[in-house]
Amino acid sequence: MHVLPVLLSLLCLTACGDGGKVLVWPGEFSHWLNMKTILDGLVDRGHTVTIITHTATPSVATNSSKFNFEILPVPFTQEDLNKHFDEVLRYWMYDMAEDSFLGAAMKIKEIVDTGAEQNKVVCRALFSNKGLMEKLKQEHYEVMLIDPMWMCGDLLAQTLDVPFILTLRFTFGNAMERQCGQLPTPPSYVPGIGFEYTDQMDFAQRLKNFLFYLSQDILLHVMVKIKWDPFYTELAGKPTELCDVLSKADIWLIRTYWDFEYPRPLLPNFKFVGGLHCKPAKPLPEDMEEFVQNSGDDGIVVFSLGSMIKNLTMERANTIASALGQIPQKVIWRYSGVKPETLAPNTRLYDWLPQNDLLGHPKTKAFITHGGTNGLYEAIYHGVPMVGIPLFADQPDNLNHMKTKGAAVSLDFSKMESKDLVEALNTVINDPSYKESIMRLSRIHHDQPMKPLDEAVFWIEFVMRNKGAKHLRVQAHNLSWYQYHCLDVFTFLLAIVGLVIFIVVKSCCFCFRKCFGKSLSKKKTQ
Amino acid sequence: MHVLPVLLSLLCLTACGDGGKVLVWPGEFSHWLNMKTILDGLVDRGHTVTIITHTATPSVATNSSKFNFEILPVPFTQEDLNKHFDEVLRYWMYDMAEDSFLGAAMKIKEIVDTGAEQNKVVCRALFSNKGLMEKLKQEHYEVMLIDPMWMCGDLLAQTLDVPFILTLRFTFGNAMERQCGQLPTPPSYVPGIGFEYTDQMDFAQRLKNFLFYLSQDILLHVMVKIKWDPFYTELAGKPTELCDVLSKADIWLIRTYWDFEYPRPLLPNFKFVGGLHCKPAKPLPEDMEEFVQNSGDDGIVVFSLGSMIKNLTMERANTIASALGQIPQKVIWRYSGVKPETLAPNTRLYDWLPQNDLLGHPKTKAFITHGGTNGLYEAIYHGVPMVGIPLFADQPDNLNHMKTKGAAVSLDFSKMESKDLVEALNTVINDPSYKESIMRLSRIHHDQPMKPLDEAVFWIEFVMRNKGAKHLRVQAHNLSWYQYHCLDVFTFLLAIVGLVIFIVVKSCCFCFRKCFGKSLSKKKTQ
Repeated sequence: MHVLPVLLSLLCLTACGDGGKVLVWPGEFSHWLNMKTILDGLVDRGHTVTIITHTATPSVATNSSKFNFEILPVPFTQEDLNKHFDEVLRYWMYDMAEDSFLGAAMKIKEIVDTGAEQNKVVCRALFSNKGLMEKLKQEHYEVMLIDPMWMCGDLLAQTLDVPFILTLRFTFGNAMERQCGQLPTPPSYVPGIGFEYTDQMDFAQRLKNFLFYLSQDILLHVMVKIKWDPFYTELAGKPTELCDVLSKADIWLIRTYWDFEYPRPLLPNFKFVGGLHCKPAKPLPEDMEEFVQNSGDDGIVVFSLGSMIKNLTMERANTIASALGQIPQKVIWRYSGVKPETLAPNTRLYDWLPQNDLLGHPKTKAFITHGGTNGLYEAIYHGVPMVGIPLFADQPDNLNHMKTKGAAVSLDFSKMESKDLVEALNTVINDPSYKESIMRLSRIHHDQPMKPLDEAVFWIEFVMRNKGAKHLRVQAHNLSWYQYHCLDVFTFLLAIVGLVIFIVVKSCCFCFRKCFGKSLSKKKTQ
Repeated sequence: MHVLPVLLSLLCLTACGDGGKVLVWPGEFSHWLNMKTILDGLVDRGHTVTIITHTATPSVATNSSKFNFEILPVPFTQEDLNKHFDEVLRYWMYDMAEDSFLGAAMKIKEIVDTGAEQNKVVCRALFSNKGLMEKLKQEHYEVMLIDPMWMCGDLLAQTLDVPFILTLRFTFGNAMERQCGQLPTPPSYVPGIGFEYTDQMDFAQRLKNFLFYLSQDILLHVMVKIKWDPFYTELAGKPTELCDVLSKADIWLIRTYWDFEYPRPLLPNFKFVGGLHCKPAKPLPEDMEEFVQNSGDDGIVVFSLGSMIKNLTMERANTIASALGQIPQKVIWRYSGVKPETLAPNTRLYDWLPQNDLLGHPKTKAFITHGGTNGLYEAIYHGVPMVGIPLFADQPDNLNHMKTKGAAVSLDFSKMESKDLVEALNTVINDPSYKESIMRLSRIHHDQPMKPLDEAVFWIEFVMRNKGAKHLRVQAHNLSWYQYHCLDVFTFLLAIVGLVIFIVVKSCCFCFRKCFGKSLSKKKTQ
């Protein structure tokens, strides 16, 4: 008798179990690692995944047989890109603190401009390749998965008329989520990304937060109007606005969850899937396991500044190594720079670490991290308290979340001394409140109705089955900003009130003149 | 090596699989039916459920051996309550349309006042029963499940220091969700419940919607300040505000989903679990199945105005029966009033219907419904287009959702003629767009990451495991309304701008006088 549910599951089997066609526009570095986990999940479910990348990609391993690739030729090389990123990192880590405000602003503008120019080269390589565009059109993809770290994926989806899903951690000041995604973000309790504020702000903080959002709105508006809208219009061959294209996203997959975020309003098509790459630890390589077991009851500390940091200045490396030598734990440090002179016997250097397996090891007492979202989620997953040494981008903000939630101590990379690092490590290892806090976050992370990766895959397949997710898209997209905030309604009501007051005052004056006018003029003439 | 996930699942097993203690403060009628589904789910999962009700409950079957009951003696009877509800219904169905605006407002105030007085009697019966209160305290319940159709459950939870979950469809104008739950509800695209608006409103509609929310805010504020805050203060024995108590709810379980709702902002602790009672159809009783099979290709129409409507006036009953006689389908009508004279042979009357099994029957072509949320969700679940005859409360709004989504035709009970009903039935049965629309909603309903009942049970158990869900509660609760809307920040910025303008103008005047003052005075003296 229950025909419908059976029919619907059959529908699902034919539409998705059979395997659909997914087109991917990925980001780089940690963005790619995160995206790859989703793509692996999709391939496991029988879908065909085609990735568009370019000849200079520093991250996407285009020799994988799991995925199909469309590789765009670009006039710069992987080395050029890496050099640019290294320069950016070096400036952020060492020079920015010494620079003037104006100097820093100019440098950041230069960095953003260079990035945008590289991005545009990739876009042009795609849209000018008529053969490839035609081929992509013929493939009739069912969904596009887009990391907006590189722009243009959204425009491609619109051109191919394929529903699309954005995957991101955030955009600066949440500007794109707010302006293009219509995500409500009350400045009174949703702190701007980049400030060391929590969701509890005093008046001065709320004031700064408000002005920050306003400045980001203006900045995005100006940047998009000058740099991107004309470019999108050129590529599309008709008037096209970037924010308008982005607003068509069916789902926004956000790379965090309520273990990390301060609770805030969301929309039905914003899905929080933080830590989707996390998994149980596997056994360590034999020699590493032996080193770890030799740590005894003191346990080990895992230390990594992420895949982008290859080396440090000798001064910074020595400061760190000397600190690590002063703690009773053994330390496993991912570092491929020159061996620091102060390196103590308790510390071992590795070019690469099985980070997730180490963080899941029962001997692990603390994690020294730059605060990238991926590593931070592995620490949450396995319940390891952190010492944060944030370097750039969202890392200070990420670690601020962990600090205010009581699970981390944060240090300033350019200013910290050995004793600061020793003190921070002793604090997170010996003060039980840090372990308790990270275990609380870990419980929240594990205690979800659905695993984050399963949820991400579910919504991707939902979009494939239903050719979008229009029932989750708010009508705010069709309102102007003043309509959205009811400013036209306010203005109308104010005008009505004004008119009523005007009529009342005028009527009173008229009556007053009628009644007392004559007697007054009589008095005057007397 | 993967110790933590194993530990966490063990933790879950000991904390919840073992069975926890749930205390319930239920509503009546359809509210109770919905709540009972959740409670059955909890009992199936091994939890012990204790329900607090009163001697006059018209809905809660207190002889069930599945649950424990605490039955409060009240000085009125089930008949008194039923009589009151009948009077309310009769006024709403027949007399309100004829009444003046002032008359209707006075009548509604009288109805609300009588309801509040009955509610307060139940509350007093609870809080004055020191023995029961002590017993409840000793039981150390892990969670309380509360339907705010009757108030005081929240105050009990606060008094017993038990985390609690609210389950509701809505409060009028979303006033409690907005004011006490901090649910963001932009009047520009979230239509007020009670208006025939969708999420696409023109200027006049947005204006009325804005004023509606404002009026509901004021009404709730006044009613709570006058009626409930003093009462809560009296019961609690210390200054207590209703909205403040309600705001402590860990989870708000909302009895709808995005198949029904227009997409709108939500908060992390608002979970949409509409249709949690829906399930596949079971075979019909033999004689009913035979009647249904005799309908041939034309199929059947299922007709129910809900459990609260026992009979109609003969005039209305005849109008309806005559219409039903004019369609080729067979009709199964839940009706226990006097048999209408115009009843045709294609229509059979029943005191009670296996409604879910009928709606899930492949022969069913349409559903004539009053538009209660439960029946409406069964129609969505099974994909049956509707003819709505809304009677009172949220029913017009519910059916408006279905109408605007293309899955129903709605009629005015007091004004409709036979031909209107015939036309409506023919439309939803023969115009394929209605079936397509309801099938679209049905797909959305079935295509969720988790079944609604499982999600409801998950969050109840989550609160039990974690003694609340504080990580989902926004800090907006700790802000005043002007702080929330940044009005203090605006005022400050305006003051700064005003001051700057004042200083500039004064400085200019001063300079002007300094420069030209002398020459001007010279000219004057000349």
